[in-house]
Amino acid sequence: MLTPWEHRFAQRTQRMTSSAIRELLKLTERPDIISFGGGMPAPEVFPIEEFAAACQKVLRDQGPQSLQYGPTDGYLPLRELIARHTGRYGIEVTPENILITSGSQQALDLLGKILINPGDRILVESPTYLGALQAWSAYGAEYVTVRMDKNGMITEEMEAALRSGPKFIYVLPNFQNPTGVTLAQERRMQLIELADQYGVPIVEDDPYGQLRYEGEHLTSVVVMDGQFRDNCSVCYRGNVIYLSTFSKILAPGLRLAWVIAPPEVIRKMVQAKQGADLHTSSFNQLVAYEVARGGFLDRHIKVIRSVYRERRDTMLAAMDGFFPPEVDWTHPEGGLFLWGTLPESMRSADVLKAAIEQKVAFVPGESFYPTGGGHNTMRLNFSNATPEKIMEGISRLGRVLYEKMGEPAGVRK
Amino acid sequence: MLTPWEHRFAQRTQRMTSSAIRELLKLTERPDIISFGGGMPAPEVFPIEEFAAACQKVLRDQGPQSLQYGPTDGYLPLRELIARHTGRYGIEVTPENILITSGSQQALDLLGKILINPGDRILVESPTYLGALQAWSAYGAEYVTVRMDKNGMITEEMEAALRSGPKFIYVLPNFQNPTGVTLAQERRMQLIELADQYGVPIVEDDPYGQLRYEGEHLTSVVVMDGQFRDNCSVCYRGNVIYLSTFSKILAPGLRLAWVIAPPEVIRKMVQAKQGADLHTSSFNQLVAYEVARGGFLDRHIKVIRSVYRERRDTMLAAMDGFFPPEVDWTHPEGGLFLWGTLPESMRSADVLKAAIEQKVAFVPGESFYPTGGGHNTMRLNFSNATPEKIMEGISRLGRVLYEKMGEPAGVRK
Repeated sequence: MLTPWEHRFAQRTQRMTSSAIRELLKLTERPDIISFGGGMPAPEVFPIEEFAAACQKVLRDQGPQSLQYGPTDGYLPLRELIARHTGRYGIEVTPENILITSGSQQALDLLGKILINPGDRILVESPTYLGALQAWSAYGAEYVTVRMDKNGMITEEMEAALRSGPKFIYVLPNFQNPTGVTLAQERRMQLIELADQYGVPIVEDDPYGQLRYEGEHLTSVVVMDGQFRDNCSVCYRGNVIYLSTFSKILAPGLRLAWVIAPPEVIRKMVQAKQGADLHTSSFNQLVAYEVARGGFLDRHIKVIRSVYRERRDTMLAAMDGFFPPEVDWTHPEGGLFLWGTLPESMRSADVLKAAIEQKVAFVPGESFYPTGGGHNTMRLNFSNATPEKIMEGISRLGRVLYEKMGEPAGVRK
Repeated sequence: MLTPWEHRFAQRTQRMTSSAIRELLKLTERPDIISFGGGMPAPEVFPIEEFAAACQKVLRDQGPQSLQYGPTDGYLPLRELIARHTGRYGIEVTPENILITSGSQQALDLLGKILINPGDRILVESPTYLGALQAWSAYGAEYVTVRMDKNGMITEEMEAALRSGPKFIYVLPNFQNPTGVTLAQERRMQLIELADQYGVPIVEDDPYGQLRYEGEHLTSVVVMDGQFRDNCSVCYRGNVIYLSTFSKILAPGLRLAWVIAPPEVIRKMVQAKQGADLHTSSFNQLVAYEVARGGFLDRHIKVIRSVYRERRDTMLAAMDGFFPPEVDWTHPEGGLFLWGTLPESMRSADVLKAAIEQKVAFVPGESFYPTGGGHNTMRLNFSNATPEKIMEGISRLGRVLYEKMGEPAGVRK
């Protein structure tokens, strides 16, 4: 029997995806569980002292401005700082190309709001970021998928998906969430060429690009797109909308991220943002600017890299030691996640149930596949737990996997 | 000639309203203008010292939690504080009825997301809050309107609008934005009865209810709805979704507001909010809790009331002195705005142009009418400017009005 409200919801034509992330965030709140489930930064690297100093300075010098309504497009000095910061990664834009959003999740939502009509197709990697699916399904999006391998989206297989007329291509080229894999340089160029050929824009989601622990930085898709036609080393051609965030390089609790897009897209997103939340917290923008400026951000990113590199290496070593040889996993060069693949005959959701009894958690990979699949995959986060917890958690998970496989737990040779 | 992006926007079936508020916020940024245009609180009442102390305490005692991802429904102690706070206004609910949003604007957006299909009608007061129209037009809403008089929405005229089958009724009963008028007690009951009879829920938007400067507090629609069928003094029947905010009683720069709704509506909004911005800033929620708790909020609201009462009285007295007798205006008992009506032959948009030359601004009323009308109306904010600025600004505006009327400026007898 539906309540009147449930009846009203049932009348809605558009459905939203189930709240898998939320249910999992709840699990990770249980303090007795070692969780590789969320995508949370290490609390140990939050620059708490710097925040305390910045709050005092902002409230002393700009108190009324920091607590008052502000402009929808964001605090100009912060947008200028972002332009300088991304410029060092080759993305040369001006503040009119930049919109501050309430986390990258809002950028995804606003893109849905200005671009998606019910039934529109979005071309996504399979698997892909669950939050994007959640944001866009609310606008009635459907998905066409392109498979991935250890070099990212298999661009050689993109044309079939492009022929279905997607509204845009969504790609996470660096240390992808959920797989941790990186889109190879030659595939980036192929992606740009195909997008150009089919007249389809690209949304490049890059929350982790600055968190590389080995190897060389690969040129962003947005930068390569600028070089593509005009052979211009610093121009912004506008076929790529680029998203990044302070969540992984300062603190996610601020809900501060940014979009880089052509001015006409920014204007449209500003209009949509006005209706969505008027503007992002003035206080948080002023405080983040105060913390980040003067070179702190670059120094801090180096600290994060060294902490996360150790955690990634610990997790990889622990998996080598404790996981059955039938399990395969990625070796991410950066970011927050790695991706495990169990034998076809196993379901990672079943493994999770057993794992939770052993007080360890991860995310079953299924929910990252918009068109099905991945029943035997798992996402593991290595940024949030300490190396000691990672060793202990992977050891427990290894025992669970051996048990599920009906083999005695043992140490891999 | 459209750019590829503009071409993509043009393909969208849903249109968003123009950015009138934003353009006006820009004007108010010009420091040489006395602006009655925005809806901004007085910066003089921001509790800056209390915020500074709260930031230090939160970062010292809960640093990692305040900077980390948090739950989508909000920080539980803050939701408990809100339940206690609204309980003193007769709204007796538990935290499972409460969702923290990134400003009330987000609550409006989420309601659109979970309830509105393209072509759905919303019953609104005419004029009504522009931000609600902006939020819902993005989801393809259409509007049926009910006229207002000095006692609020003319509920006697509601039935025609209700027969068109609106998805919900949107009402701002206290010191409405934009008119400043309050819905009379007997009309509140009529509204509830008609909503019940037609099976239509009510969205009660109450950002200013606690800012009353004279007269008795009127029972909220949500509370009367609970008393209506069950004769229950403290029950929550669930046909009214109630919105309020910290923007007017603490600081808008935090982007913190709340929704009160039945648990099944909260769950649906939580799902929608996950896709929209994951959660509202943890840091701001912890800091606001720290500032508000221990009775500070009630003490602070008294301070705000006394400051705004003086400003309202100043504006009313100045209008009595400086405005032509042909102009009419409301006498709000609270809130942030009053509403002027010029002779039919005048357009307030023309007056605004002349006013800006004299360095004074207001909002022409037209944009608050979703189905047209109001060309001769104007919204004036009295909370943001100091009494001195209010005197000076209204004096300038009076001169502009006299000039536009072709009469010599003079003092009204």
